[in-house]
Amino acid sequence: MPAKKREGKHATPKMPPVDQISVQPGETIMSLVEKWANTGFTAKRIARACEIYWKMVTTPNCKKFFALAGAMVPVGMQQVVIDLIREGFIDVLVSTGANLTHDLAECLGFRHQQGHTATGQVKDADLYDTRINRIYDVFMPNEVYESMEDFVKTLEFPKDMPVREFLKYLGKTLANQPRDCILKAAADKNVPIFCPAFTDSGLGMQVMFNKRGINLNHFDDLQEMVNIAWDANPAGICIVGGGVPKNYIMQAMQFSPTSAKYAIQITMDRPEPGGLSGAELREAISWGKVNKDAEFVDVICDATVALPIILAYLKTQKHK
Amino acid sequence: MPAKKREGKHATPKMPPVDQISVQPGETIMSLVEKWANTGFTAKRIARACEIYWKMVTTPNCKKFFALAGAMVPVGMQQVVIDLIREGFIDVLVSTGANLTHDLAECLGFRHQQGHTATGQVKDADLYDTRINRIYDVFMPNEVYESMEDFVKTLEFPKDMPVREFLKYLGKTLANQPRDCILKAAADKNVPIFCPAFTDSGLGMQVMFNKRGINLNHFDDLQEMVNIAWDANPAGICIVGGGVPKNYIMQAMQFSPTSAKYAIQITMDRPEPGGLSGAELREAISWGKVNKDAEFVDVICDATVALPIILAYLKTQKHK
Amino acid sequence: MPAKKREGKHATPKMPPVDQISVQPGETIMSLVEKWANTGFTAKRIARACEIYWKMVTTPNCKKFFALAGAMVPVGMQQVVIDLIREGFIDVLVSTGANLTHDLAECLGFRHQQGHTATGQVKDADLYDTRINRIYDVFMPNEVYESMEDFVKTLEFPKDMPVREFLKYLGKTLANQPRDCILKAAADKNVPIFCPAFTDSGLGMQVMFNKRGINLNHFDDLQEMVNIAWDANPAGICIVGGGVPKNYIMQAMQFSPTSAKYAIQITMDRPEPGGLSGAELREAISWGKVNKDAEFVDVICDATVALPIILAYLKTQKHK
Amino acid sequence: MPAKKREGKHATPKMPPVDQISVQPGETIMSLVEKWANTGFTAKRIARACEIYWKMVTTPNCKKFFALAGAMVPVGMQQVVIDLIREGFIDVLVSTGANLTHDLAECLGFRHQQGHTATGQVKDADLYDTRINRIYDVFMPNEVYESMEDFVKTLEFPKDMPVREFLKYLGKTLANQPRDCILKAAADKNVPIFCPAFTDSGLGMQVMFNKRGINLNHFDDLQEMVNIAWDANPAGICIVGGGVPKNYIMQAMQFSPTSAKYAIQITMDRPEPGGLSGAELREAISWGKVNKDAEFVDVICDATVALPIILAYLKTQKHK
Repeated sequence: MPAKKREGKHATPKMPPVDQISVQPGETIMSLVEKWANTGFTAKRIARACEIYWKMVTTPNCKKFFALAGAMVPVGMQQVVIDLIREGFIDVLVSTGANLTHDLAECLGFRHQQGHTATGQVKDADLYDTRINRIYDVFMPNEVYESMEDFVKTLEFPKDMPVREFLKYLGKTLANQPRDCILKAAADKNVPIFCPAFTDSGLGMQVMFNKRGINLNHFDDLQEMVNIAWDANPAGICIVGGGVPKNYIMQAMQFSPTSAKYAIQITMDRPEPGGLSGAELREAISWGKVNKDAEFVDVICDATVALPIILAYLKTQKHK
Repeated sequence: MPAKKREGKHATPKMPPVDQISVQPGETIMSLVEKWANTGFTAKRIARACEIYWKMVTTPNCKKFFALAGAMVPVGMQQVVIDLIREGFIDVLVSTGANLTHDLAECLGFRHQQGHTATGQVKDADLYDTRINRIYDVFMPNEVYESMEDFVKTLEFPKDMPVREFLKYLGKTLANQPRDCILKAAADKNVPIFCPAFTDSGLGMQVMFNKRGINLNHFDDLQEMVNIAWDANPAGICIVGGGVPKNYIMQAMQFSPTSAKYAIQITMDRPEPGGLSGAELREAISWGKVNKDAEFVDVICDATVALPIILAYLKTQKHK
Repeated sequence: MPAKKREGKHATPKMPPVDQISVQPGETIMSLVEKWANTGFTAKRIARACEIYWKMVTTPNCKKFFALAGAMVPVGMQQVVIDLIREGFIDVLVSTGANLTHDLAECLGFRHQQGHTATGQVKDADLYDTRINRIYDVFMPNEVYESMEDFVKTLEFPKDMPVREFLKYLGKTLANQPRDCILKAAADKNVPIFCPAFTDSGLGMQVMFNKRGINLNHFDDLQEMVNIAWDANPAGICIVGGGVPKNYIMQAMQFSPTSAKYAIQITMDRPEPGGLSGAELREAISWGKVNKDAEFVDVICDATVALPIILAYLKTQKHK
Repeated sequence: MPAKKREGKHATPKMPPVDQISVQPGETIMSLVEKWANTGFTAKRIARACEIYWKMVTTPNCKKFFALAGAMVPVGMQQVVIDLIREGFIDVLVSTGANLTHDLAECLGFRHQQGHTATGQVKDADLYDTRINRIYDVFMPNEVYESMEDFVKTLEFPKDMPVREFLKYLGKTLANQPRDCILKAAADKNVPIFCPAFTDSGLGMQVMFNKRGINLNHFDDLQEMVNIAWDANPAGICIVGGGVPKNYIMQAMQFSPTSAKYAIQITMDRPEPGGLSGAELREAISWGKVNKDAEFVDVICDATVALPIILAYLKTQKHK
């Protein structure tokens, strides 16, 4: 019995072949990424993300917006973000409050700890009794919050300044700290940090408890964000992890002359439940947030894997 | 060759058997949930969520916190949330700005539209050209935003009021609208709505553009949220979809006398990338956000499926 | 500053509105499904799956193929599958060996047990010591396998019969057992059960250990499967959980005159890693497995939730 | 208002700190993996997988079982698997039939093609009309199957040989082909390939159609697999992608003297729906498949990313 005959109406188009890649002892990340570019699935998408990000970096006047969600600082990605800022790969940063809280804590000398990879065997009630806060397989001693309070009490600033200005002031205040951090790097490089849900964080809580009458101006931030988008021609975006940082950049893109011409998204969320975090980038085309001729790629991968690889690619390209 | 002998040190414990459930013509949701309670996987977890929510409702003085993220209003879950409020099943609501924006739009007479379930065949560039914004398989005509602007311009309110007070004022303003909505129901029932990332929404943008000098007070909201948690004894939480609403409730739970004694989470995010949205509820025990003796359940399911089932269970229990 | 003007080339098309659904005390599954049909996301997709399955049932001569993967019997879905068979909703069943192993065990009188929903707190080493095998939050005492051996030893059958014939013989052998099971129902209703990876199961192992020289004929099964597909006009498919059962049906569909005209897939896997289990149904159109004019729907949901709802819908339709 | 005091019963334990990693121009994979080892989430887990695999390689007499599922050959991972075999990093391979089908096709000179990363914009009906089969974002021209038929017709072998022997014969037959492949490498290195669901594949179909009366012996394979496990002391396992290959190795591990002492799993499936593919490795401890003192790690990552990194690490270690 022959297989059902398939009468092709058209000739089979010639697409580039998939390479059967190999790797060698001492293989570099750059080399692997270049091989991945001719494969498929997530491997190829990381390679595409590298290429698109490098285009953002080398396109004249391209304004690079970067959304940072997820526990990137506790897990050891703080320096990766610092490098992205200091190398000039980020022009505007939108972050959760949590990452800034952890960033400040590390800068002040506290350390997050490695937990157990066999998370299923960890009893959270025991962690509670030993004053350890768990972030999947990373631990944060609770004393971090307590000690941060002393620092916050020393701060002096106008009570109605925009959040981004407060964060810049914070970055400058940390100039003498021996450790580098995102807040410091952004202040140094004049990269604004937007934090639309600042009160939804440990740092926001410390500020609220210790600075009576505070009313940082979130609407001034929003106006400034729209202004920056308005002047971004072209705009490029890199989204790590979704949530408010993603949406805040996306809604601003509607005011950018050509919307995002370059777009990268790194997430493990999925689109079917309809939340913005998992929405495919192409959906943003319908909204006018991403340009219909944009180069874009969705990377379904933990950012702890994809982001250092992208940074290594960018640094290698820049310094070769 | 015999299978490797397994020398049990202890006798096998007697756990309740799994029921092989059946369903009948005309089966009710209540009946199915009761059957699911003796199975496993997500079926059993929805049943546990029903039971735990009902305990929250029937436990004297239990303060019920509800986190609302994801595009619940566009997809048709607005009335489900309204009912949860009007039936007394929610005492404190924390929402994304997007759900409130969509809630307002529906109240003002606009409708979201059903898109195509075969989302893969939809061209987003075509949607853009026809002024349709896509939310997975739901469509929102872009004119919704444009028309909302006229409404916002009519509003009169103090520029530094807390966000929750602004939302309450908004709810009262809508009293004469023929359609019910979450804002209206919450104002009627005196349920505060917190929206920590209000500027990250279409409504927030409209307010910013049309009310110069606005500076709604997010820190006053945070103080009030902590106060409410401080007085919640016991506290119960239901988390839909993660993000800022989840974290805002969770961080407040650290100030509640016994942390959350009841906890339900409905999400499709996963824990391994370390983001809070996908974090298992038990992780919150380590932080003192959920009580170590709490009754809690993680439900890995689209909320459009789980939430109406839970509401049907609660209504059936209450009105039997 | 006005929002960027969007010049629509075409008028906004009129799609049906999303209903803001409500549920009532005593709500039936049928009623909820009918409401879900006018929403979106997974809720609407379950409704679509119900409608499409009912079309398969009511379309003259439609051959209904059903793929069963995942631990459906241990979790309490055995009777649901039995009912699907006995009601005439399944014509051809393709199953993992595991589900048939568990099906036989339940029929012989053994019971699976409910584990703990807080799976993170269960120590698997302790379970091992108490001779309990864990399937997420369901437990299976190890003695099940040991006792099944006695039963297998009593069987008498030709050593080179096709797997499907062996499974039919097994179903007939169980006729006198007080409990119903999938094997028995399929034998009664003359529904062939294909099990392409039969040796990859506890039952397959028992047969191998206790029936020396056995060589059940997998290729005869494949020929028969292709023959059935060849004669199926039209064909409809319902895929639960992916894996070999999905692929075995899909590859046969290439030989069906019109490929699958109706297709339902219920899975929690995702498409981006490229595995067949998570592949969207529309991908099968390119292969000629699903007809390009087919009615199909992907349901991203645990089958323990979706399948009983679909069965309740079908039974209600059939018996009204 | 002070934060709720947490009275730690025990002192906070000292865990190793999380390193804030950086990467440099020209960074090697080896260097990145060593940095990842002191972070968390998936980054750390890939590092753990590298370390554990290297232990498997360097532990005397450790038998290394490798499960291969997912479309690894179409996406460009064929040479990675070939290298793993030729370097001596795999002792026993269990594969889906699909990967072997694609392996044979590539060896015979056919090529898979790169599709579009923006999969949402691809119309599958158009692909069908142009005789292109889609595997997510990889394309396979349909003519591959048609031409493979000619090759299969030339084969001469006993009709009741075990599947693994047939696959070995196939590998030897390919010795003169200019391209290398998994079948050839395994035959050269005397690595048995088990394929429990062989009839569930394009190659299985070709054999069935062209070799009348064929009845390859799956039970002989199963006996041999158990024998190998019985003699494996210690055993180590690396699971790529779940499905039948995972289960077939896992069930054999119950017969290994110490069960798996080393275990790696690379998957994007999740545990909550209860299927084996997504089951955490620790669950296998309860079954006696993984030793309770085993070193093991679950890596939630697309294998196209994780596997080349692991191979680069192993090659660098071996050849330094």
